[in-house]
Amino acid sequence: METHKDTEKGLIERAMIEKKYVHGYSAREKERLHDQANTLTGLLHSDTIYPPGSTVLEAGCGVGAQTVILAQNSPGAHFVSVDISKESLEKAEALVRREGISNVEFHKADIYRLDFGEESFDHIFVCFVLEHSVRPLDALMALKKVLRPKGSITVIEGDHGSTYFCPESSTALKTIQCLIDIQAALGGNALIGRQIYPMLKASGFNSIKVSPRMVYVDSSRPDLVEGFTKNTFIAMVEGVRVKALDLGLIDQATWEKGIKDLYRTTEQDGTFCYNFFKGVATK
Amino acid sequence: METHKDTEKGLIERAMIEKKYVHGYSAREKERLHDQANTLTGLLHSDTIYPPGSTVLEAGCGVGAQTVILAQNSPGAHFVSVDISKESLEKAEALVRREGISNVEFHKADIYRLDFGEESFDHIFVCFVLEHSVRPLDALMALKKVLRPKGSITVIEGDHGSTYFCPESSTALKTIQCLIDIQAALGGNALIGRQIYPMLKASGFNSIKVSPRMVYVDSSRPDLVEGFTKNTFIAMVEGVRVKALDLGLIDQATWEKGIKDLYRTTEQDGTFCYNFFKGVATK
Repeated sequence: METHKDTEKGLIERAMIEKKYVHGYSAREKERLHDQANTLTGLLHSDTIYPPGSTVLEAGCGVGAQTVILAQNSPGAHFVSVDISKESLEKAEALVRREGISNVEFHKADIYRLDFGEESFDHIFVCFVLEHSVRPLDALMALKKVLRPKGSITVIEGDHGSTYFCPESSTALKTIQCLIDIQAALGGNALIGRQIYPMLKASGFNSIKVSPRMVYVDSSRPDLVEGFTKNTFIAMVEGVRVKALDLGLIDQATWEKGIKDLYRTTEQDGTFCYNFFKGVATK
Repeated sequence: METHKDTEKGLIERAMIEKKYVHGYSAREKERLHDQANTLTGLLHSDTIYPPGSTVLEAGCGVGAQTVILAQNSPGAHFVSVDISKESLEKAEALVRREGISNVEFHKADIYRLDFGEESFDHIFVCFVLEHSVRPLDALMALKKVLRPKGSITVIEGDHGSTYFCPESSTALKTIQCLIDIQAALGGNALIGRQIYPMLKASGFNSIKVSPRMVYVDSSRPDLVEGFTKNTFIAMVEGVRVKALDLGLIDQATWEKGIKDLYRTTEQDGTFCYNFFKGVATK
């Protein structure tokens, strides 16, 4: 991801260390990103279809979890998928190759300093990127420059503050707060979903339409219990365990209880709720 | 509403006093209930259509806000709408008469002790009632008795714990917590939306499908800014002002700041989120 390139050095260095916790470079994290994409594909992506012949910039493609979906949903469009991490790009390229997809090219690029000509893309797609951006408005402005007039931008983000569940547990909420606090310490914002509308507006985009995409999980939906609650959300929280304990954000007993309570919501009488947001606007 | 009939006397008496705050007997509250129904009609009710010739029990019809929608959506069905409050029933009858609706009959009844024969209804509809019920499982069991085999039950509830907004404000959350605490003190549960699935399951219903109905508001949706955020949600919170201050749940300065912060979310760069839940199951 492009995330921390432009921050003060200390933050960058911390970010590099954190990346394996927050961004998904471990084996389990990589699996998580793909689980997330598979489980949520319909909810988040089914209405993103680009016309044949159009050129689309995917900004911050990461390990390619969304790239595959995008490219398969719009086989006639041409995708330019960029990321600041060479390691992520290699994984994304390998994934796309494995899937037999040929309408994607990859470039190493920094969202804040894109090397493309002004107005060179018909559409822009940004998913799970702004939450990690230190200056999300600057990122949007930089993206707007390379977008042609009347071209569209699509922004998808989650909002960790939208999480609630049954049975209730204030301890489980504390473990989630660790994830939010660590992301904030890295200059990101885990509560960014609710801000997509004002951010697109402040960046000068037009015809902004933001729609909520709610994930609701109960035991009648075992695919979501496994694919979302356990393998996406709880895995993401568990990913910051070491850091949260190291930073003293939480003590170990509280952490273990909170994680146990999160898993408790995946039982027969449990429910779990989370909101994503999708914004579409034009230049 | 049927709400507090079966509770210990002290609670009943408190409930009677609270009703004007929590249940909607004041002029503004009555207006609020109708605003709510109008704004949310599509989101909550558009997929509730009963076949001609079927008999539907609306349990806890209140002042008839939902009755009108139900009866108009299914003009060939026959509705029996009950409430424990004579005052509410009179208002509901007047409203239905004013709308020229003829497929509804009203009865005074207590959900826990319904006077109808077993299996006498094809379908049951319960909306914004269980949140005020002291024993929601008993209410569901009592309703199940009067439902015919294979008949359906529809349950709609909100979840105040699903509320979040932009700009964030912990003070605003405190005013909402007053509403939650007061409802809990009356034996109700303002966080019941997330529990519809386990409650229907525990009551022995089958083929349970719960779907989230998310209200997302930003300034591109002025009808929701007025109709939901201001005239439904904030009005509902403001309805417990006197009680919250009397009970010492919050101090006046914090209250005023919290309400101001809630209104702040209705400005150009604000957003507001709330989740309802709709459960449908069969006997």
